[in-house]
Amino acid sequence: MRLEILPVEGIGDITAGDDLAALITSAAPWLADGDVLVVTSKIVSKAEGRLVEVPADGPERDEARVRALESETARVVARRGPTTIVQTHHGFVMAAAGIDASNVDKTHLVLLPADPDASARRLRADLAARGLDVAVIISDTMGRAWRNGLTDVALGAAGIDALLDHRGEIDPYGNELNLTQMAVVDELSAAAELVKGKCDQVPVAVVRGYPIRRTGADAGVSVLIRDAESDMFGLGTAEARAEGLREAAVLADATGPVAELRAVERALRLVSEVLTPGTGIEMSARRGAVDSADAVRLTPAGSEPADFARLGADAHRLRLALATEGVISRVAFDDEGATLRFGEA
Amino acid sequence: MRLEILPVEGIGDITAGDDLAALITSAAPWLADGDVLVVTSKIVSKAEGRLVEVPADGPERDEARVRALESETARVVARRGPTTIVQTHHGFVMAAAGIDASNVDKTHLVLLPADPDASARRLRADLAARGLDVAVIISDTMGRAWRNGLTDVALGAAGIDALLDHRGEIDPYGNELNLTQMAVVDELSAAAELVKGKCDQVPVAVVRGYPIRRTGADAGVSVLIRDAESDMFGLGTAEARAEGLREAAVLADATGPVAELRAVERALRLVSEVLTPGTGIEMSARRGAVDSADAVRLTPAGSEPADFARLGADAHRLRLALATEGVISRVAFDDEGATLRFGEA
Repeated sequence: MRLEILPVEGIGDITAGDDLAALITSAAPWLADGDVLVVTSKIVSKAEGRLVEVPADGPERDEARVRALESETARVVARRGPTTIVQTHHGFVMAAAGIDASNVDKTHLVLLPADPDASARRLRADLAARGLDVAVIISDTMGRAWRNGLTDVALGAAGIDALLDHRGEIDPYGNELNLTQMAVVDELSAAAELVKGKCDQVPVAVVRGYPIRRTGADAGVSVLIRDAESDMFGLGTAEARAEGLREAAVLADATGPVAELRAVERALRLVSEVLTPGTGIEMSARRGAVDSADAVRLTPAGSEPADFARLGADAHRLRLALATEGVISRVAFDDEGATLRFGEA
Repeated sequence: MRLEILPVEGIGDITAGDDLAALITSAAPWLADGDVLVVTSKIVSKAEGRLVEVPADGPERDEARVRALESETARVVARRGPTTIVQTHHGFVMAAAGIDASNVDKTHLVLLPADPDASARRLRADLAARGLDVAVIISDTMGRAWRNGLTDVALGAAGIDALLDHRGEIDPYGNELNLTQMAVVDELSAAAELVKGKCDQVPVAVVRGYPIRRTGADAGVSVLIRDAESDMFGLGTAEARAEGLREAAVLADATGPVAELRAVERALRLVSEVLTPGTGIEMSARRGAVDSADAVRLTPAGSEPADFARLGADAHRLRLALATEGVISRVAFDDEGATLRFGEA
């Protein structure tokens, strides 16, 4: 296998309603069956009229940008200084929802295509109507966690599987690959970016020679979107830490399983420095359950009202420490102290 | 500009001490000045002897894997089920520290090269000694946040700038680009992966026709590593949330600025459902400071010891709610209630 990556030059300015298939085939009459066409999302957005009008400058421009960001945002993932990373309605996690003010006149912002997989399917169909059987990828430039610098990735695709599944293949040493699914549409987008440039008006590139795999439904890039529950980085670190603090403030009484003795001991160790000196701490377990605890009894260091108030604060601290160990508790206060209970009893 | 991506076939098995420059030039006698050579990290590791011996199966194998992971780990970023994402000593954030059991016999694990930038510089120098002026990238396959599927990225580079800086360029509409730095070595790695395959023993590919930029020091891939403080995703969501809970458990008295009245009100709203009904709440501010609060006084709903214990728990909840608003507090308990103070007074 050898690949060629070819820029498509001379496409020029795109405005709403433009026929991309016509413009691309006239700029690249050499386009051939089996090519992978990688189209920068910006020209797709422009052709589809996905622009919002904004003032050219001043605070009104900033306000209009904020409004556009809000309308493109499904949820905020992380914020720091001027940067807001959100999950878009499509499911992409991107700075500023992919809204862009470059390569457009100063009175417009460019939004992402509303449904990039559908845009890719439409463009592929339009090219098919002209007798061309190509795969279409719609790409955009994105940042990522942990690494500086941006790369191009795919927002939409048609006529090509987004993932190339190596699972089940056997390597030359007899090991079965069990995790490897390559995001080939992202790699094709990155490859295409290398010939595009940012200010050179080369919004389309062609990858030639790639053995396109296409199985079953034309699912597009949607298969690359990881749902929030299975993502280990669904929230920014600062945001998740703040969420932990909020949970701690409103922690409710609840019933979970009986606690492991060692978990309770670890929780007590965590708060040992902050509990009021002299506080009485006694663990209890049901008869015969040697490695478990179903309650901790706390008694105050003295008999004044302030001693009981300190005990109450300490009880909440210990409940939070238990929560970090996965131990669910409920608390009862009486006139001699506090009891934290775990388990059904 | 047009690029070609060419696989280098017939390199065969690599063992410790092998001369990669000799093997690559003999497999690819067509290699030419200006080419970008993208080498899979695994063969670099093998040539450098970065292998650990492990039992072929059984619990001893798992234990040896855990030990290898620990020694390659600078810090754990996130854990879920069998997956551990760590930051390596190089600074890369990767599942299992990039340790791999594929494409190696069953009694070895392959570690990442100890210093991939140095490995790239060495290979580039070895090729230069053979009269070839090429850029060298050492690549590996990585997962990423938010998107399914893996892509190849660069671990090391020599003779090429890792980042291509578009900042300051003016687009055709007169807008100055102010954020765009492309991680071109990652895009070149991704492009090369497209011709490599996983079990096909094509560990090297060449990108031909790319206008290599090389300015100043040969800093390699190190410039792509984002330090933990400037990374908004330095910890997994669950880990950061747990850290928030732990902070809440051990929250210490501290002195910060006077609080904004609205921040205190938001904190009170957050805990309003969980505070003991009947608790007395009074905010106070210094004379003339209408929008700020320097203390909140809490008094118990009754006069029994248990009422004071509940008040103590409520005081800690409110302090946590204030902390989510950035309000730093200290608490004093007396025989009539509790006072939370903000600011120096």
